[in-house]
Amino acid sequence: MDFSFTEEQNMLRESVRKMLDRIATPAYVRAMDEEARYPYEVYDAIVEMGLISMVFPEQYGGLGGNVIDFVIIAEELGRKSYDLMGAYGTSVFNGLNLLHNGSEAQKRHYLPKLMSGEIRMSISMTEPDAGSDAGAMRTFARREGDEWVINGQKVFSTGAGAKNNIISLYAKTDNSVHYRKGISLFLVDNTLPGIRLRKLDTLGRRSLGTYEVFFDNVRIPADCIVGEPNRGWDYMLSGLQLERLMTTAAYCGAAQDVVDQALAYAKERKQFGKPIGNFQAIAHMLADMQTDVEASRLLMLHSAWLLAQGKDALKVLSMAKLFGSEAYVRAANNGMQIMGGYGYIKEFDMQRHFRDARVTTITAGTSQVQRNLIAKLMGLDPK
Amino acid sequence: MDFSFTEEQNMLRESVRKMLDRIATPAYVRAMDEEARYPYEVYDAIVEMGLISMVFPEQYGGLGGNVIDFVIIAEELGRKSYDLMGAYGTSVFNGLNLLHNGSEAQKRHYLPKLMSGEIRMSISMTEPDAGSDAGAMRTFARREGDEWVINGQKVFSTGAGAKNNIISLYAKTDNSVHYRKGISLFLVDNTLPGIRLRKLDTLGRRSLGTYEVFFDNVRIPADCIVGEPNRGWDYMLSGLQLERLMTTAAYCGAAQDVVDQALAYAKERKQFGKPIGNFQAIAHMLADMQTDVEASRLLMLHSAWLLAQGKDALKVLSMAKLFGSEAYVRAANNGMQIMGGYGYIKEFDMQRHFRDARVTTITAGTSQVQRNLIAKLMGLDPK
Amino acid sequence: MDFSFTEEQNMLRESVRKMLDRIATPAYVRAMDEEARYPYEVYDAIVEMGLISMVFPEQYGGLGGNVIDFVIIAEELGRKSYDLMGAYGTSVFNGLNLLHNGSEAQKRHYLPKLMSGEIRMSISMTEPDAGSDAGAMRTFARREGDEWVINGQKVFSTGAGAKNNIISLYAKTDNSVHYRKGISLFLVDNTLPGIRLRKLDTLGRRSLGTYEVFFDNVRIPADCIVGEPNRGWDYMLSGLQLERLMTTAAYCGAAQDVVDQALAYAKERKQFGKPIGNFQAIAHMLADMQTDVEASRLLMLHSAWLLAQGKDALKVLSMAKLFGSEAYVRAANNGMQIMGGYGYIKEFDMQRHFRDARVTTITAGTSQVQRNLIAKLMGLDPK
Amino acid sequence: MDFSFTEEQNMLRESVRKMLDRIATPAYVRAMDEEARYPYEVYDAIVEMGLISMVFPEQYGGLGGNVIDFVIIAEELGRKSYDLMGAYGTSVFNGLNLLHNGSEAQKRHYLPKLMSGEIRMSISMTEPDAGSDAGAMRTFARREGDEWVINGQKVFSTGAGAKNNIISLYAKTDNSVHYRKGISLFLVDNTLPGIRLRKLDTLGRRSLGTYEVFFDNVRIPADCIVGEPNRGWDYMLSGLQLERLMTTAAYCGAAQDVVDQALAYAKERKQFGKPIGNFQAIAHMLADMQTDVEASRLLMLHSAWLLAQGKDALKVLSMAKLFGSEAYVRAANNGMQIMGGYGYIKEFDMQRHFRDARVTTITAGTSQVQRNLIAKLMGLDPK
Repeated sequence: MDFSFTEEQNMLRESVRKMLDRIATPAYVRAMDEEARYPYEVYDAIVEMGLISMVFPEQYGGLGGNVIDFVIIAEELGRKSYDLMGAYGTSVFNGLNLLHNGSEAQKRHYLPKLMSGEIRMSISMTEPDAGSDAGAMRTFARREGDEWVINGQKVFSTGAGAKNNIISLYAKTDNSVHYRKGISLFLVDNTLPGIRLRKLDTLGRRSLGTYEVFFDNVRIPADCIVGEPNRGWDYMLSGLQLERLMTTAAYCGAAQDVVDQALAYAKERKQFGKPIGNFQAIAHMLADMQTDVEASRLLMLHSAWLLAQGKDALKVLSMAKLFGSEAYVRAANNGMQIMGGYGYIKEFDMQRHFRDARVTTITAGTSQVQRNLIAKLMGLDPK
Repeated sequence: MDFSFTEEQNMLRESVRKMLDRIATPAYVRAMDEEARYPYEVYDAIVEMGLISMVFPEQYGGLGGNVIDFVIIAEELGRKSYDLMGAYGTSVFNGLNLLHNGSEAQKRHYLPKLMSGEIRMSISMTEPDAGSDAGAMRTFARREGDEWVINGQKVFSTGAGAKNNIISLYAKTDNSVHYRKGISLFLVDNTLPGIRLRKLDTLGRRSLGTYEVFFDNVRIPADCIVGEPNRGWDYMLSGLQLERLMTTAAYCGAAQDVVDQALAYAKERKQFGKPIGNFQAIAHMLADMQTDVEASRLLMLHSAWLLAQGKDALKVLSMAKLFGSEAYVRAANNGMQIMGGYGYIKEFDMQRHFRDARVTTITAGTSQVQRNLIAKLMGLDPK
Repeated sequence: MDFSFTEEQNMLRESVRKMLDRIATPAYVRAMDEEARYPYEVYDAIVEMGLISMVFPEQYGGLGGNVIDFVIIAEELGRKSYDLMGAYGTSVFNGLNLLHNGSEAQKRHYLPKLMSGEIRMSISMTEPDAGSDAGAMRTFARREGDEWVINGQKVFSTGAGAKNNIISLYAKTDNSVHYRKGISLFLVDNTLPGIRLRKLDTLGRRSLGTYEVFFDNVRIPADCIVGEPNRGWDYMLSGLQLERLMTTAAYCGAAQDVVDQALAYAKERKQFGKPIGNFQAIAHMLADMQTDVEASRLLMLHSAWLLAQGKDALKVLSMAKLFGSEAYVRAANNGMQIMGGYGYIKEFDMQRHFRDARVTTITAGTSQVQRNLIAKLMGLDPK
Repeated sequence: MDFSFTEEQNMLRESVRKMLDRIATPAYVRAMDEEARYPYEVYDAIVEMGLISMVFPEQYGGLGGNVIDFVIIAEELGRKSYDLMGAYGTSVFNGLNLLHNGSEAQKRHYLPKLMSGEIRMSISMTEPDAGSDAGAMRTFARREGDEWVINGQKVFSTGAGAKNNIISLYAKTDNSVHYRKGISLFLVDNTLPGIRLRKLDTLGRRSLGTYEVFFDNVRIPADCIVGEPNRGWDYMLSGLQLERLMTTAAYCGAAQDVVDQALAYAKERKQFGKPIGNFQAIAHMLADMQTDVEASRLLMLHSAWLLAQGKDALKVLSMAKLFGSEAYVRAANNGMQIMGGYGYIKEFDMQRHFRDARVTTITAGTSQVQRNLIAKLMGLDPK
């Protein structure tokens, strides 16, 4: 048993943190949020540090990092803003999906560009009537000669509108088969004719952007399909654990930032002649918040270690995601209470956390979906 | 024992609701929030319906309504948006303060204008270092001949920057006396020279506006003081119960709107072939939310009835405020969970409730202050 | 609107409280619990005070009280121990069921005896495999000439083994019909041959006793059926609201006693030189507990008023039951925390409340059943 | 980073579990609780397996295990009943205190007897008016020639009355010095003249027994003092982290047993034609319970690893204790809800967990004390 990080892991964390302290300043993060602008500068620095290369094997020009490295990066990004991890993560998850399921030609074509920052990647799966229930998907890719012709609509596509972005698009290719079968995965440049992107005006997570994507007779070459037709659902599942893990790691970083900010304020702000953090009502809140964050991190690290060992981590990972997102929501809610009127002003970061946090129990599987999943892994069958 | 409203009370509710349905449409309320604009049109309709006159006695041209009427109005306004009640309430509370503590001349001068909509009123008490702890107040009014000269800064002054607004300003007039003594109340036109207003960019409650107000040698005539010098704190306290009550009534209305919207969505939105409201996880959340709102309303109505009887309501009112604000926060948080990704988009109202609600456990005495107060009334002395 | 009690209602409360202070002393209540003995002395005093007569109309020798009276009595009994209300309630609910559904002969025979204390009544409905799901009931009453012959087993029959007790037995009389149809109601003396009673060793509520009742060819005369055959389920439902109301009233009384005891201890017990109630962590707990109890009472009184008006109270009553039982559980849990090691000792009453409270969210419809019911009344259909 | 146990650690767990499955059967554990009898048979088996020797170094005849071993043992004991860990722990903690602070002669005399099962040990520190606030201690040991003469009263002395028990008694020896100084540690045979033991009738944890201990001119030889006079408080603190850790480990085992039992019941028990565990309301409760237990275990194991590395673990350990005890309380409370009426009967174990759990947030530092401590380690100073 060993709860420590290696020297290299600590150095990695240190260097990511330094880079972020330099570029992702409070003013930068606020501008990202207020102006809803994609964090291109941080993304470029991520590329430059080799953090994207890190997740790919050396044979494709990558650096061959491991899962523990990834969660360290994710946690540090999340500490500044969940969307920084979002920018990194969407490229990484979709790149890994390509690595595991794409053709050799696709890998040789796309991965170097991804690692060099020439392209980035995003995912489009959810539809207005197909959220957790992917069986209801309607977007369809029809084969016409050497092309696929795509029609339909996606929603909640994070980062779909960024520059130089390739969309990993899940679309039905066979309506005759049951349920989640008949879905295929395609690589679609987001500037192709027939694609229309509409950025939603969301409460939080405003930097990366959440898009509606409309496909109107969008034509892509036949070789833009990833792997075999009708196996898209399996491909999606194959990368899900890593995605959920890094998402959860970012929650941990973000929740820690909430505690740090609330604590700093509670030490500084005086009422009735003493710092408000010295009142039990506030002090105990902070103690519970930090305890929650520690528990979240350990669940997340346990999952990371399992995945790093090549083991299935689904149960503890679902717990980590559930607990971590709920803990971030609680922390941000309490952080608002501690900071009082000041937390309510846009000049302070707490209100951004309050907004950003709120969607974490909804995306990447709602808390209800996680509980269903955990219950199933305990041998129950909730409906 | 009687839990019913009279015919007249039901008619009052009905007519307020009709007026609001006509003017305060969803689009109007969204614009109020997004553009941070004062609800002048609703305020004018409120004036026109006589709702401001209602709280004043007939001898000053009022309609002489009672406390139950006021909470009905407050609840209906809150149902559309807390800030509508805020616009109404700041005028009413400060007008009543004047009624109870002002000179005959002041009443004859200001009250008719208030009832006719010619002026409105707001309050400025909190300072950067004097929140619940009013003893630390620094804004000072110095007597010079026939004038008071005011210097200092106020913060979190709701609605201070609206047109034709008279600020009820609490300022120290005697620093030699202890603590809350030595505070006086003044009536200050918000357009006087030396006054600078700065609207804060707040998370929610954006319509009425939360202002910093800077006073730089602001001169007002001697007769702008309300009542006797150095008795401002008592005057402030005298109206506090009614203010807290109407605030709480607005929470009840707002929380009910949250339930109504979440319920409607849960009946409409289908996943896995059935409305999500038919899953226990969602259904039970809604049942608890509605139960919370019922409990909030009864605590609020009990307080209202006590005040209507001329009795002290401080204990149950503090409970109503505490429970009602916490219930609104919980409801809005759950409402977001139920509406999923859609709740996160600005096109839907739930995210506004989520933002508006968050400050209710902070303003008008934080939940911690309410608990301290309740505990004191139970014979304890928490520090 | 009127939240006050009448002079008569206040006198009733006062006289019940005085009687209980005299007989149901702390030592008595502890003995009831520890020795698991039925509170015959209190029951006799209840009879003597006319509290049973109070619920019946004058034409059968009753005093014709109303629902508000009943909840006053229930609340005061519950304040001493839930089981005192249990003893009273089982007689009253089953007596009322007889009043509403029995034959004139049955009423003339049983009601005077009930009011004079000659008999008491209890209910037997739940079976090992038929809890909330009454459709699975197996106990069967077969008609043989002038008799019914009963076989089967009931469980969780509260107070079934008390002296001079008549069991209101629900048994299937027709297995050919669907579900809850085919159930009839019988009056069965608990000393009849073929009846075996087994008192369960329960965590709390030990005085009244929770019994398994085994029926082995128990023969009763044909006229022991109440109303028409196969309509038992309707009869059961007809009295359910009053039963649930009085149960909830007793929770309110019990929860208030928890707050009173915890508060008294928190004022008395010193740590670090001051009463522990002056630490915010404890003071705020007590403030929340009292707030919960106030909310519970108002929900309960609102339900009572609706029933007293002859109106349907199902929705608010289900909320009152849900909220009231959960509040009692929370209060007792916090009461234990406040009293520390002392609360854990049998010499103090808090641990009895902790035990007694725990079943309140389970009996009379679990909290989950209440939430289902409330959700249904909101237009949902949770499964 | 490594979250796995070694082969030896897994074998240790296996063998402890096998032994307990054999001796500490459900019937045995129920008898321990109901008859309030000390678990001599399990204690003997613990001794025989060398589990007590395991914590001591080889030079005193011990087996030199490490902290990870201890928490494995504690967790397995706790899984059967907290009191089994209590029996083991009190001997171990007090033996270790002696090891670290006693004279060579004392170690040579007592440790072999402790390891052979000839004696066991307990602690007496808390007094009626000195709980968390040890400064108020009144029991006094006066030096008279070659003896110490002890007078005073201790309370909440766990296991003090067991056979062949040596009490580690903390008593004042110098009242002239401030606060926690002036306390010394003594070894006192619990059968000495002048000692009177009174077993308290507690809600749970009934097997080991919680005693009041009265000292009336109890005389012990001068060499029964441990270490130097007036340094008792330091000695007590020195072992506190290990004690708190093993206590927390036992909570984790106990909470896991709650989940296991509730889960088994939820799979078995049918309502409305399906296992109740397939209703979301129950399934989600179980998912949250298991998540809580996993988080508790990771916090506990992290603390164990820190201590095993010889590092300070106070902060994460306080979190582990806080979170673990609260999680056990929540789990047992939910376990009761899931098991419904059956959980309320003494024939099932759930009600014992409900009772046993309730004191875990009170003993070994209340949750409020833990939160104060964590807050202090975060740089706050709550009062």
